[in-house]
Amino acid sequence: MATDIESSSKIPENEGDHVDMLDASFDGYGGVIVNVKEDMDENVFITLLRTSIFQWRQQGKTGVWLKLTIELVNLVKPAVQEGFWYHHAEPTYLMLVYWIPETKHTLPPNASHRVGVASFVVNDKGELLVVQEKSGAFKGTGVWKLPTGTVEEGEDIFVAAIREVKEEAGIDTEFVEVLAFRQSHKSFFSKSDLMFVCMLKPKSSVIEKQDSEIEAAQWMPVEEYANQPFIKKHKSFDYIAKICMAKKDNKCVGFSALSTATATSAKKSYLYSSYQEE
Amino acid sequence: MATDIESSSKIPENEGDHVDMLDASFDGYGGVIVNVKEDMDENVFITLLRTSIFQWRQQGKTGVWLKLTIELVNLVKPAVQEGFWYHHAEPTYLMLVYWIPETKHTLPPNASHRVGVASFVVNDKGELLVVQEKSGAFKGTGVWKLPTGTVEEGEDIFVAAIREVKEEAGIDTEFVEVLAFRQSHKSFFSKSDLMFVCMLKPKSSVIEKQDSEIEAAQWMPVEEYANQPFIKKHKSFDYIAKICMAKKDNKCVGFSALSTATATSAKKSYLYSSYQEE
Repeated sequence: MATDIESSSKIPENEGDHVDMLDASFDGYGGVIVNVKEDMDENVFITLLRTSIFQWRQQGKTGVWLKLTIELVNLVKPAVQEGFWYHHAEPTYLMLVYWIPETKHTLPPNASHRVGVASFVVNDKGELLVVQEKSGAFKGTGVWKLPTGTVEEGEDIFVAAIREVKEEAGIDTEFVEVLAFRQSHKSFFSKSDLMFVCMLKPKSSVIEKQDSEIEAAQWMPVEEYANQPFIKKHKSFDYIAKICMAKKDNKCVGFSALSTATATSAKKSYLYSSYQEE
Repeated sequence: MATDIESSSKIPENEGDHVDMLDASFDGYGGVIVNVKEDMDENVFITLLRTSIFQWRQQGKTGVWLKLTIELVNLVKPAVQEGFWYHHAEPTYLMLVYWIPETKHTLPPNASHRVGVASFVVNDKGELLVVQEKSGAFKGTGVWKLPTGTVEEGEDIFVAAIREVKEEAGIDTEFVEVLAFRQSHKSFFSKSDLMFVCMLKPKSSVIEKQDSEIEAAQWMPVEEYANQPFIKKHKSFDYIAKICMAKKDNKCVGFSALSTATATSAKKSYLYSSYQEE
């Protein structure tokens, strides 16, 4: 992957016999990551790019990653004309790629899924935390729904579930299990969605609803939530309600989270399963 | 979402009193989807864009989606100069967005996760299907691993697991359960990964390995797989091996897949849980 930087190919400009090249670093997979920090003339950029690719080819490099912030939009067209194509984009930048060898490229694919959470929070009285939203598909329908939200960049699923409940209803919770997940397609253009239903245990009871997004929030008997005509009519919501009720009666097993972090690895990840170490 | 098209704002050009505008359709959320099909002069584009946004503002429209294929790269810079920013990109196009009202935009976020699968295929003799890869992090290490792969655009998780096993080892399988999933961050740049461990039941036994990606493939006792030093050393792999062995002994519950498709909805999605309808 292109983020494991091993060394730098930076060559100071205008210094003796050195050839002017673009500032870049190398990753551990034969890739080159170009750092264009300042705006430059399009023709200067094309000359530097051609010289750089010639050198990288000599060095046996393969993929070239070119990250252009939106301020450098004038360099997008020259890059494409030199054979680069789009890899992914975020509001503030566009990532372009180029493959030096004559072979088929092996660059990693772009992200394909948005990830969301729905929180199932039941108190000791068997009441469920439900909300009505001010915008979106449920606006003005009177439907009481689970608090939901989108997992933010770099955020763990269970952390997102806890955060959304705190933001929307002011309730503190702890994560118990993922009860279910749903994969759906063409959610926006050609992208897919994954939505994780998380069971959380409430640690407080007084609701303080968020004014900007939430019309109303309350504790409601789980059965009353499940019996809403809208929920019963939509197979996906009906299943989720049934799964949540089955869990309330301990008739359903969810996935808890195991940290896979080790003393020697800074890379944190969580594994979700029903497995319990003996 | 911007894909629920309700009507078209196309106005024929050069026809009586009509104002020239960009070809566009409207979605059900106040959004406008611009269709630029042919290359055009940058100045003509800017004029049409300004006129169109003026009209859409009068009509109370909110978000503007501008999809520019890579051939139309010359229009990227003018669009950004008119206030558009990047939403997402794929190899063949760049999607730019603009928000007409003075309020904070409510456009849906970009995809944040790549989704992968690892397949746990055990035959009646308690042997596991394992492979050695020709490229990637495991190349030349001698480590036997589960067949893995990336979920393709619009593909269901369980379908991807079955496909990868067929492609890499030529074995036909049927999906049983998702045994576990792992979420990890910064897998490439700021994006995250979700990897689903799928248990599959083999329907054939003769291995035909894929020559391009797979160095070797075989059936191996599950315990032998789990006892490889590499697997034992890495917490994440070690947990997955333990979960798979627990499942083999029926000591662990996975999530099976329920279709949520209905007669009235064309939209297909799958819900994964341990819930069994009574």
